[in-house]
Amino acid sequence: MDLNAIRILGLDPGLRRTGWGVIDVTGSRLAFVACGTILPPEQAPMGERLAHLHRELLGVIERFSPQEAAVEETFVNMNPSSTLKLGQARGVVLLAPAQMGLPVAEYAALLVKKSVVGAGRAEKAQVRMMIGILLPKATPETEDASDALAVAVTHAHHRGAAARARAAL
Amino acid sequence: MDLNAIRILGLDPGLRRTGWGVIDVTGSRLAFVACGTILPPEQAPMGERLAHLHRELLGVIERFSPQEAAVEETFVNMNPSSTLKLGQARGVVLLAPAQMGLPVAEYAALLVKKSVVGAGRAEKAQVRMMIGILLPKATPETEDASDALAVAVTHAHHRGAAARARAAL
Repeated sequence: MDLNAIRILGLDPGLRRTGWGVIDVTGSRLAFVACGTILPPEQAPMGERLAHLHRELLGVIERFSPQEAAVEETFVNMNPSSTLKLGQARGVVLLAPAQMGLPVAEYAALLVKKSVVGAGRAEKAQVRMMIGILLPKATPETEDASDALAVAVTHAHHRGAAARARAAL
Repeated sequence: MDLNAIRILGLDPGLRRTGWGVIDVTGSRLAFVACGTILPPEQAPMGERLAHLHRELLGVIERFSPQEAAVEETFVNMNPSSTLKLGQARGVVLLAPAQMGLPVAEYAALLVKKSVVGAGRAEKAQVRMMIGILLPKATPETEDASDALAVAVTHAHHRGAAARARAAL
């Protein structure tokens, strides 16, 4: 890893599948590091599913030592019960990097698509295709892993602006 | 603590305020142990708020060593954004006891009110009054702490039935 690189962990939370993706950013250059999908046991009680997700996330953070994290803010039309469950997974996904001392940024799904594909209404397949172009070595095995890499790329584009905004306060 | 007693941790999750309450149950006898309210810093980034909540919950569990946990399943009419935020806090509240090896039960708010007051549409003030009668030594300083004790009492009433149902499988 380039000493000047910033390592970013992107996360696409979900109770059934949480995607994660790690990239290195040096200036405007992006490099793929790793990606994957966490699948908590669907039949287990809620607390155990969340504990599985938490454990796996801490494992990814320990293994790749990212310096910053970025989480996708999904906003789809769901019933309140599904929204509550997504929130539960999301809480654990926001918690794990924060506990490890990483700053955690959040990006709306529309912004992620716009940053990666150039259009907020892009299909998941288009996101995946653009990830293949931006990170040629990436081999995301699921759309969740591909989306997580897209969140990491979005953070790479926007973190400078966010840092400048903080410095100006 | 009576060696035959079961110690129960009740939890009423919320991002601004999470109530917790610990009771001992010996047969049909209930005894108040402790209660309180966790108030994560409202101005901090989401990850840090959740990390604060998680840290405080682990502290309560280490201090009182409950054997079982019960979490209230709130279902109020909220906009999706508020539901997602409640879910995030709820995820951390379900995670902490599960990580410590406690079985975690969930009870609908209607059932909690019905168990404690006798009516599903009871007001929060009625819940608080009944907690004062059921647990005379309890001094909940917030409605969240009072609700958490009510969840613990609900679990005390229903855990036997749940255990029998599991045994019959």
